[in-house]
Amino acid sequence: SIIKLFVLPGDGIGPEVMAEVEKIVAWLNSEGVARFEIEKGLVGGAAFDAHGAAISEADMARAKAADAVLLAAVGGPKWDGVPYDVRPEAGLLRLRKDLALFANLRPAICYPALADASSLKREIVEGLDLMIVRELTGGVYFGEPKQIIDLGNGQKRAIDTQVYDTYEIERIGRVAFDLARKRRNKVTSSEKRNVMKSGLLWHEVISALHVREYPDVELEHQLADALGMQLVRRPKQFDVIVTDNLFGDMLSDVASMLTGSLGMLPSASLGEKDPASESRKALYEPVHGSAPDIAGKGMANPIAMIGSLAMALRYSFEMGELADRIERAISLVLEKGLRTADIAGGAKQILSTAQMGDAVLAELKAA
Amino acid sequence: SIIKLFVLPGDGIGPEVMAEVEKIVAWLNSEGVARFEIEKGLVGGAAFDAHGAAISEADMARAKAADAVLLAAVGGPKWDGVPYDVRPEAGLLRLRKDLALFANLRPAICYPALADASSLKREIVEGLDLMIVRELTGGVYFGEPKQIIDLGNGQKRAIDTQVYDTYEIERIGRVAFDLARKRRNKVTSSEKRNVMKSGLLWHEVISALHVREYPDVELEHQLADALGMQLVRRPKQFDVIVTDNLFGDMLSDVASMLTGSLGMLPSASLGEKDPASESRKALYEPVHGSAPDIAGKGMANPIAMIGSLAMALRYSFEMGELADRIERAISLVLEKGLRTADIAGGAKQILSTAQMGDAVLAELKAA
Ligand SMILES: CC(C)[C@H](C(=O)O)[C@@H](O)C(=O)O
Ligand SMILES: CC(C)[C@H](C(=O)O)[C@@H](O)C(=O)O
Repeated sequence: SIIKLFVLPGDGIGPEVMAEVEKIVAWLNSEGVARFEIEKGLVGGAAFDAHGAAISEADMARAKAADAVLLAAVGGPKWDGVPYDVRPEAGLLRLRKDLALFANLRPAICYPALADASSLKREIVEGLDLMIVRELTGGVYFGEPKQIIDLGNGQKRAIDTQVYDTYEIERIGRVAFDLARKRRNKVTSSEKRNVMKSGLLWHEVISALHVREYPDVELEHQLADALGMQLVRRPKQFDVIVTDNLFGDMLSDVASMLTGSLGMLPSASLGEKDPASESRKALYEPVHGSAPDIAGKGMANPIAMIGSLAMALRYSFEMGELADRIERAISLVLEKGLRTADIAGGAKQILSTAQMGDAVLAELKAA
Repeated sequence: SIIKLFVLPGDGIGPEVMAEVEKIVAWLNSEGVARFEIEKGLVGGAAFDAHGAAISEADMARAKAADAVLLAAVGGPKWDGVPYDVRPEAGLLRLRKDLALFANLRPAICYPALADASSLKREIVEGLDLMIVRELTGGVYFGEPKQIIDLGNGQKRAIDTQVYDTYEIERIGRVAFDLARKRRNKVTSSEKRNVMKSGLLWHEVISALHVREYPDVELEHQLADALGMQLVRRPKQFDVIVTDNLFGDMLSDVASMLTGSLGMLPSASLGEKDPASESRKALYEPVHGSAPDIAGKGMANPIAMIGSLAMALRYSFEMGELADRIERAISLVLEKGLRTADIAGGAKQILSTAQMGDAVLAELKAA
């Protein structure tokens, strides 16, 4: 059957890295491995420039109708002055919220060939393979009230609200425990229960879920500040980390830096499984941003975007083996010493975005 | 005149590291350099065990009457089950709030002798000297509503509120800009204005303050997640970082890990200067916690606590030179290869807490 991919290249280097994914999709189609149909839309600054919104209603409808959404990146200094509600990020946040993509999976893997690109010592990061499971549709990102009040006398008051309900914590907890069972069977749950009521509830709900449904999985709790520290000190102690929207944002960025390059890291944002169809809404995107400074130069690393396609195959289409093949192709390319500028280190030859995409495709074909 | 220090050893390794500060204070008194008077109180679990509160009213009154408070650390698994309002951390939070200690200064300095103890590569951290200025009496730590509501059906809702007013951002901004002028003249302001209204106001107020009062200082803005990343990637780009209570908590813990050991890092928490007396409320404490696992073993590193005394001399008592002398003594001890267990690396001889305190004192005497 036909698989509908809705593709949102977005801003900055987005279109360049997405082009490499499209090459791979075209090849998969031509091989008859699957029948992907690609529809394209606009998000972020690109959408604002076209229709004055961070994503149009028509594109939201297409995103909802698709089997999976692939998004590259949004934002850039060009849109620094646009109103808050139509800033580029609003498009991404609306996609997450309206598709109810509550589970954000952010693997941090340190490829042996790249261990020296990390600012951390090789022995600290070599072989690192952890997964951050970040709650994505709740917390301070979406809680109300969220406003700025004018108090007069030149004073304003800004308010953001962190809200979590039991069911929101439970469902993200299940995602983490289920993943751990397929990995090294350990979950680290993180909050600030010593300061936040939401941390207190988080700790209580995850602990109860553990006892009730996942007693076979090892569970530990670390305060979010201490976890940030441990990520830098001894990251290989972790398997699956589960945390809220804001802590997940910070901690996954710190974790990403352990691996040597942001340009390598994919992510998946998943909705609830429909019990009838067994399918779920999903969006796949690199962890990196739109990198306006190098946009249009053909320098960007497309590996995170290609890895995001692999995650789509694994989590949306039960094509785990094909996902493995793509990830192996990426590893092989790196082992051959092929590098884009961001991971160049001492490499002799630096590849362009398109050359890197071609190199991954060549390995795929050779396999 | 007599300087009144209110000393709160707290829990875990607290009493052990505080004892080394008391040795130094006694020596300063005997030398006639200053006349310190020490009064002692209880905070955290120790206070709970004695009077069922995380700090007694009498000790709060003593803290308010003192010229400065020295606190070592609070908390431990022993008090995991105590009610939320009297948990050990509540004592620390009450001191911060009731003394109005809005400015938390957290230096992260990488001593050359310890650069190899960091999990980061030597060239990334050697010579690191940054200062995190964290807002300490606002934000999500104290905003209301802050509660857990029972929704029935086994569902609860937890709410925390992040609140910032213009004046709170302005006064912490001034602290950061003033410090930068005495350092390398650069401030990096950090928030999540792409997601939080408080981030939007933070950015607006700091930017306006810069233009109005500190045009001579270099100002840049980095989103909090990106800053976490940059701290790991290229920490030496920073001089002074100014951020809110929660981001400051996370980012200062990440920064602390760059330096090789938490056992090395002091902090200062300052109130507003009284215009009449030119004095201010202040509390000085190490960044590290109570380390219950090594408590009572005489293994803890007292340097962060001794460094906190040095910060007290500098920021509360205009004794900057004496502070410099203490910090030099610490450097010399490290250069001689003297190490407590936490920073031992390959060191031949490991010092106890008391031996390290004596070693610092010996350098002070020799100078
Ligand atoms: C772009 C921004 C709104 C987003 C976030 O804060 O979630 C980004 O940092 C991320 O982590 O995906
Ligand atoms: C103990 C805890 C309440 C405290 C905080 O979160 O502020 C600590 O982590 C700190 O950074 O001083």
